[in-house]
Amino acid sequence: MATVAGVLRVLSVSSNNATALSPRSPKFSSSSPSGSAAAAFVSLRGAQSPGNLLERSSFQMGQSNISLMGQTTRKSVAPIKASALITPDGGVLVDLIVPGHEKVQKLEEARSLPQVNITKIDLEWVHVLSEGWASPLRGFMRESEYLQSLHFNALRALEGSLVNMSIPIVLAIDDVQKESIGKGKAISLVGPAGNTVAILRNIEIYKHNKEERIARTWGTTAPGLPYVEEHIRNSGNWLVGGDLEVLERVRYNDGLDHYRLSPAELRAEFERRGADAVFAFQLRNPVHNGHALLMTDTRKRLLEMGFKNPVLLLHPLGGYTKADDVPLEWRMKQHDKVLEEGVLDPQTTVVAIFPSPMHYAGPTEVQWHAKARINAGADFYIVGRDPAGMGHPTEDRDLYNADHGKMVLSMAPGLERLNILPFKVAAYDKTKGKMAFFEPKRADDFLFISGTKMRNYARNGENLPDGFMCPGGWQVLVEYYQSLSKEQDAGKKEELQQQVVSKAVKNPVPV
Amino acid sequence: MATVAGVLRVLSVSSNNATALSPRSPKFSSSSPSGSAAAAFVSLRGAQSPGNLLERSSFQMGQSNISLMGQTTRKSVAPIKASALITPDGGVLVDLIVPGHEKVQKLEEARSLPQVNITKIDLEWVHVLSEGWASPLRGFMRESEYLQSLHFNALRALEGSLVNMSIPIVLAIDDVQKESIGKGKAISLVGPAGNTVAILRNIEIYKHNKEERIARTWGTTAPGLPYVEEHIRNSGNWLVGGDLEVLERVRYNDGLDHYRLSPAELRAEFERRGADAVFAFQLRNPVHNGHALLMTDTRKRLLEMGFKNPVLLLHPLGGYTKADDVPLEWRMKQHDKVLEEGVLDPQTTVVAIFPSPMHYAGPTEVQWHAKARINAGADFYIVGRDPAGMGHPTEDRDLYNADHGKMVLSMAPGLERLNILPFKVAAYDKTKGKMAFFEPKRADDFLFISGTKMRNYARNGENLPDGFMCPGGWQVLVEYYQSLSKEQDAGKKEELQQQVVSKAVKNPVPV
Repeated sequence: MATVAGVLRVLSVSSNNATALSPRSPKFSSSSPSGSAAAAFVSLRGAQSPGNLLERSSFQMGQSNISLMGQTTRKSVAPIKASALITPDGGVLVDLIVPGHEKVQKLEEARSLPQVNITKIDLEWVHVLSEGWASPLRGFMRESEYLQSLHFNALRALEGSLVNMSIPIVLAIDDVQKESIGKGKAISLVGPAGNTVAILRNIEIYKHNKEERIARTWGTTAPGLPYVEEHIRNSGNWLVGGDLEVLERVRYNDGLDHYRLSPAELRAEFERRGADAVFAFQLRNPVHNGHALLMTDTRKRLLEMGFKNPVLLLHPLGGYTKADDVPLEWRMKQHDKVLEEGVLDPQTTVVAIFPSPMHYAGPTEVQWHAKARINAGADFYIVGRDPAGMGHPTEDRDLYNADHGKMVLSMAPGLERLNILPFKVAAYDKTKGKMAFFEPKRADDFLFISGTKMRNYARNGENLPDGFMCPGGWQVLVEYYQSLSKEQDAGKKEELQQQVVSKAVKNPVPV
Repeated sequence: MATVAGVLRVLSVSSNNATALSPRSPKFSSSSPSGSAAAAFVSLRGAQSPGNLLERSSFQMGQSNISLMGQTTRKSVAPIKASALITPDGGVLVDLIVPGHEKVQKLEEARSLPQVNITKIDLEWVHVLSEGWASPLRGFMRESEYLQSLHFNALRALEGSLVNMSIPIVLAIDDVQKESIGKGKAISLVGPAGNTVAILRNIEIYKHNKEERIARTWGTTAPGLPYVEEHIRNSGNWLVGGDLEVLERVRYNDGLDHYRLSPAELRAEFERRGADAVFAFQLRNPVHNGHALLMTDTRKRLLEMGFKNPVLLLHPLGGYTKADDVPLEWRMKQHDKVLEEGVLDPQTTVVAIFPSPMHYAGPTEVQWHAKARINAGADFYIVGRDPAGMGHPTEDRDLYNADHGKMVLSMAPGLERLNILPFKVAAYDKTKGKMAFFEPKRADDFLFISGTKMRNYARNGENLPDGFMCPGGWQVLVEYYQSLSKEQDAGKKEELQQQVVSKAVKNPVPV
């Protein structure tokens, strides 16, 4: 068959290791243990040197000689350059922050425009757009961009090429706001704190068909999707797109702003360090030693391939997350410990916050996570099982097939230049007392420690097996979960008291 | 903004006529009258000669000089050749029908394989695949193709380019069938009539997540979508993909097979006629004079552009349609009359049946309708308001925004080579006694005749206004609708009788 299916099949028989990438491989089957199991990408035996990588990236590879890494590169819009950072989508990194000398004048203008109040999540998107994470997008999507994103997960750039854009980045307004804009061509956006954040120019207002947006983005319309309930369900019936001018850099003043490096700052940092390969690791969970194994192993293999200085971008997501995820401040404390205690090498690791909110939209969202990292200078992207996945909100199953994220990512239009690194499961090897790549043949030797299990350990102040996580990092989590159970206990007590009061009011004790 | 949105905006101010294509144009707004209103594509003032078309097709157009036709061409994978038919997707027209001399041997082999019974609609897809309408697809989709179709509406061909494929063409099997296949590498498909239809080789079985498939294809999961209820809801929980070998040409023996020209036969016919442009008109409704106006007008304008012999492919859809659409046999009778009575010129018109079943999936499906016509040799495709649309099954609104089909089509990956011709609404001009392009300034002069209105006229044996439809064509519809109301009356009588009987059984008259 003259399509990628054919390529994938050819690949899965042409390499001993390629089975790990095959959709039907038991290693990645949905019945294999997951939880928070650590993971490491498949062995790169047969991997090629950077020189060969250049060749493969222009799709000159012979089918009989395709390495596993080859599978992750395919056709390239531009050859990967080992000596310079990957170019941003659209060629130029977008920067929508108004230059200092124009700020006063723009602020004055903004105050004369119809004002639209935006939510905390909208502001996170303003942040994302302003720094060029979504390059070449220059503002909230107009209808043609929205439709391309929804139907094709990609936008056509002016020169005709496709850039990936899987998640609609849109701004909803309600009937009253629409009315107040009237025939205006520009609006000002006012943040949750009441400050004027940005001007949106050359606006286009179009219908917000929430049902269609949700169905096409999540592949379900079941109630209970966190981002939908938090941000879409009660949002306005219109979307407004346009060109964004952001009055000043978005800051949160939560003590973490120094971690919020823009793509331009990250690129400068990678250049300062002389990185000839940047591999990004997206996460929204604490780092355990399985993750660390994976990341150090990746660097080792990139070195073996001939890269001289591969740098890791450890890039936790910092925008909206659902209530039962570990909050950003605790995750950052934990990540700090991981570096402090030498689990990861600070010399070759850049820790920064990715400002995007989380959709939990699985295969659709993982493309956004990868695409944004191209703009930040990463040319390698590590992808795990069920990226951006979650349980189905109303059925007793995972919302997404755990393999689909990796498969979709490896085929997505506009991501051809990015090297996708899938990883196999790692778990706690009881015989070795440390995290190791899972070996199905001696499955009983391995212990999978799920998020729930970890939470229970932490709550009860118990210690995890040695070697699962660095002691300092684990201490942070113990502290977090214990603070949480105190809060919950307090919450429960309050709730109980209220019930007693309420009961008393409803059923007064007969005098 | 460096994306197509920018292009569209530039276009919508660079041409007097381009407003008709703008998403916010009142001519195409969802409040404008639709129903079965005839339609004609926007005036082609500023249209260019075939020579210039070649230039535009390689996207060398200056923004200040973009014509309306230019808007519909964009970047081309290969330049449009005025002297030869457009090449099929993937370069070669797929033909999956087993050569005559191999048939006996293949049939014997097929009988030795695990058998899977397929439905009437599955057989229609076998038909579609066998003749190459879905080129370069060579069988029911494997998982990687399914995912690309679902997420990107496009498949990556081996050489790295994208071909459009918006609708998953998949075969569902249930647990029992999966069990019976076991580890088999090939199966035989048995048609509804009990005959062995095809072999499916190198099969891959994967999960059929119906909810996700429906949500991503239709943008809703509401109950009542015709294709879903008819074909997906009760289908098996697995999909089986593979390479198809079809034992003989699919025939229906309904007196219409001579209309079922394959893409290869259509190409041969266009070449025989010396066509230097082929414009396709997809429909699943009777042809009225508004359609005819549009089609003759298209030819006229293509001639003005310098084409010497543009040929119309009048291409009614012949697969599954919902119960309240006019059945194929009646539509074909009606189309015959339209040609017989000279409303369309038989010399420059090819009437044939497009064998695909209908999804009613709006902007997603219209891409399939267009893509399949590339494979049949068409390089121009006429698109109306709300193509492949229908009412929302549970809400009082149209399922799709009426403009989205046209917009999505003009931006779809893999359709760059196809010239999309949007059309504006036509209606019955009472002052002229004929169908004419609707002029909002004298809206009261126009009469919109909806499908419902037409049905009521026909049922009551009343005549439509002169000039709405040719008399012979109208007579066919009168006959059809009257046969229908007789059936319904008979059905109602039967139903009433049953109710009487049932009532009598439930509430026996006391003796």
